[in-house]
Amino acid sequence: MEATYQPGLENVIASETAISYLDVEQGEIVLRGYDLIELANKVTYLDIVGLLLDGVLPDAEQRRSLEQKLIAEYEFPQNVLTMLQLLPKQSNLMDVLRTGISAIACYDEELEDRSRDANYRKSIRLLAKVPQIVANGYRAVTKQSFIEPRPDLSYSGNFLYMITGKVPPETEEKVFDQSLIVYSEHEMPNSTFAARVIASTQSDMYGALSGAVASLKGTLHGGANEAVMKFLLEAGSVEEMESLILNKLARKERMMGFGHRVYMKKADPRAVLMREALAQLAREKNREDLYNMCVIGEEVMNREKKLFPNLDYYAAPVYYLLGIPIDLFTPVFVAARTIGIAAHVIEQHANNRLFRPRVLYTGLRGLHPQT
Amino acid sequence: MEATYQPGLENVIASETAISYLDVEQGEIVLRGYDLIELANKVTYLDIVGLLLDGVLPDAEQRRSLEQKLIAEYEFPQNVLTMLQLLPKQSNLMDVLRTGISAIACYDEELEDRSRDANYRKSIRLLAKVPQIVANGYRAVTKQSFIEPRPDLSYSGNFLYMITGKVPPETEEKVFDQSLIVYSEHEMPNSTFAARVIASTQSDMYGALSGAVASLKGTLHGGANEAVMKFLLEAGSVEEMESLILNKLARKERMMGFGHRVYMKKADPRAVLMREALAQLAREKNREDLYNMCVIGEEVMNREKKLFPNLDYYAAPVYYLLGIPIDLFTPVFVAARTIGIAAHVIEQHANNRLFRPRVLYTGLRGLHPQT
Repeated sequence: MEATYQPGLENVIASETAISYLDVEQGEIVLRGYDLIELANKVTYLDIVGLLLDGVLPDAEQRRSLEQKLIAEYEFPQNVLTMLQLLPKQSNLMDVLRTGISAIACYDEELEDRSRDANYRKSIRLLAKVPQIVANGYRAVTKQSFIEPRPDLSYSGNFLYMITGKVPPETEEKVFDQSLIVYSEHEMPNSTFAARVIASTQSDMYGALSGAVASLKGTLHGGANEAVMKFLLEAGSVEEMESLILNKLARKERMMGFGHRVYMKKADPRAVLMREALAQLAREKNREDLYNMCVIGEEVMNREKKLFPNLDYYAAPVYYLLGIPIDLFTPVFVAARTIGIAAHVIEQHANNRLFRPRVLYTGLRGLHPQT
Repeated sequence: MEATYQPGLENVIASETAISYLDVEQGEIVLRGYDLIELANKVTYLDIVGLLLDGVLPDAEQRRSLEQKLIAEYEFPQNVLTMLQLLPKQSNLMDVLRTGISAIACYDEELEDRSRDANYRKSIRLLAKVPQIVANGYRAVTKQSFIEPRPDLSYSGNFLYMITGKVPPETEEKVFDQSLIVYSEHEMPNSTFAARVIASTQSDMYGALSGAVASLKGTLHGGANEAVMKFLLEAGSVEEMESLILNKLARKERMMGFGHRVYMKKADPRAVLMREALAQLAREKNREDLYNMCVIGEEVMNREKKLFPNLDYYAAPVYYLLGIPIDLFTPVFVAARTIGIAAHVIEQHANNRLFRPRVLYTGLRGLHPQT
């Protein structure tokens, strides 16, 4: 038995992986050997999908083949759409997404096959269907009519189209694609860890992803991007931003979108990239005020708490300017992360050891029932 | 950073808890200070619910009050029953159960309230509704009509009634109740760990339980009881049992229902209790052959592999003789464990630290995209 106990498993190595690594010293997010930020500037989300699944960046031919495989899996079970319509209007869209992912498992004929090949095909199916659950789950709950995927659009273009109902201009598709890349994979956050823990019982990929969605819903994890946007809207202006943050800090409340367990006192390179994307979008949409609010917020938090923004802080206003409803920010994060989680499930099944830790028991002993 | 890496977090302390502890030295499963086996012989499952939620065994008045609270939460959203009917006939009942639990989250008005009191009420709601998802999920998928809970029956009696459609005789209700007790809580198995990991993002109890269901589906965890029963039916007779096991071992296949990470070379006291229950049921139902098969299997595995049976090995034939469909063995386990998982979620939320471990990166470094 380990003598030491690290709450939250902080700094405890839980897994071997060849998928990704946060190099805190170098400030680099390593993805299958590449720097994630360099990838985000040079390739597309579809390339990341290929890289994470196959271990190498696809060439043009392989990229085309991957795209064809995804489009071939766009077909979606009508019954699951009907199920989503039965959920109440006030439903949290993360609960809707989790329910939809849980339900489509029942339609995968290879569900119980955990071979590498079957897991690969299930990853493709999930990548094709999760964006549809995100977009049409929202449409179901808000009583709008469903939208069909458009195979003539790119993967990211179609995803954004299904959410907004409009084919996005090139810049917007590009920025959205970049956001999917930076959300795609990030070593061993809580959700990926939850997925690997679940998969280690030899449970299936849909179940592991359902657990990851439940994890990402939490405000200490994926839910942060929605909290950031609500805060920005509450502030409403550059002038109000500083005083609102100072009030929050005075009340000892947590400011969402800042700090990260692993980066600690260093900047999140993904946030830097999304800040640039926000600057560009804000210029095009005449919303420099929103960009300026974010920059002021960053300065105040750095001055007052020595904290740096994380990805969620800048992804939130980017998604807002792209016309994505705030309640969908975290579901979109899930969709982007689906490929990372799928890669981890494949890796876990390929070299499995059941997760089964122990506890430090602090309760009573030696009681006997009186009956 | 911890220098050591324990695959599967074996022997790593992941959490403090005052709920339960496996004392391997003493061979005791400690539940809030009591010996689980002593409890199973002296109290009812409802008392265990009170003990796990309130920290003390209820007196007669408190037990009545708890029962009333449960009955008051029997009301079930009709839309979720309709959703379950939309799932395909071939669905795995664990996927059906996970989908149902995920969906009823949307009907809980206190879903996002993580205070102790709200979490307590959510535990009661889940305890009232999960058995209904188990029973009516099965009925939905097998195209049978739904069954309503009967508030005039005991909690366990009603659960078994909803599965079989028949009010169980006293002995059967008693044995089923005991099985729910021994399945109720067991320190930090994979599913409970998954639930705590998820809850640590400040995600809600339904999400944590959905993840736990996904975990329990795995054949290395809850799925084992179904595998045991299928093996017993395949063997079919005392004579065949030994040779079938020897063949399996010769092929280096894993024999389900034997061994346990934590008990290792010691007997699982829950299995001993369920063996007694099986002996009694087998006598009453003239199925001593089934009991004898199990005993022979236990002897062979002990002789050949020095392995002891775990709970699943004897719970499986008990459930079979109680008339529970094999596909429901693991869902029933989930229903019994719901109270343990709820107690762990409450404890996690009360003293939270986000689970966020690190990895041992074994992949490449220093690659650059060619584009």
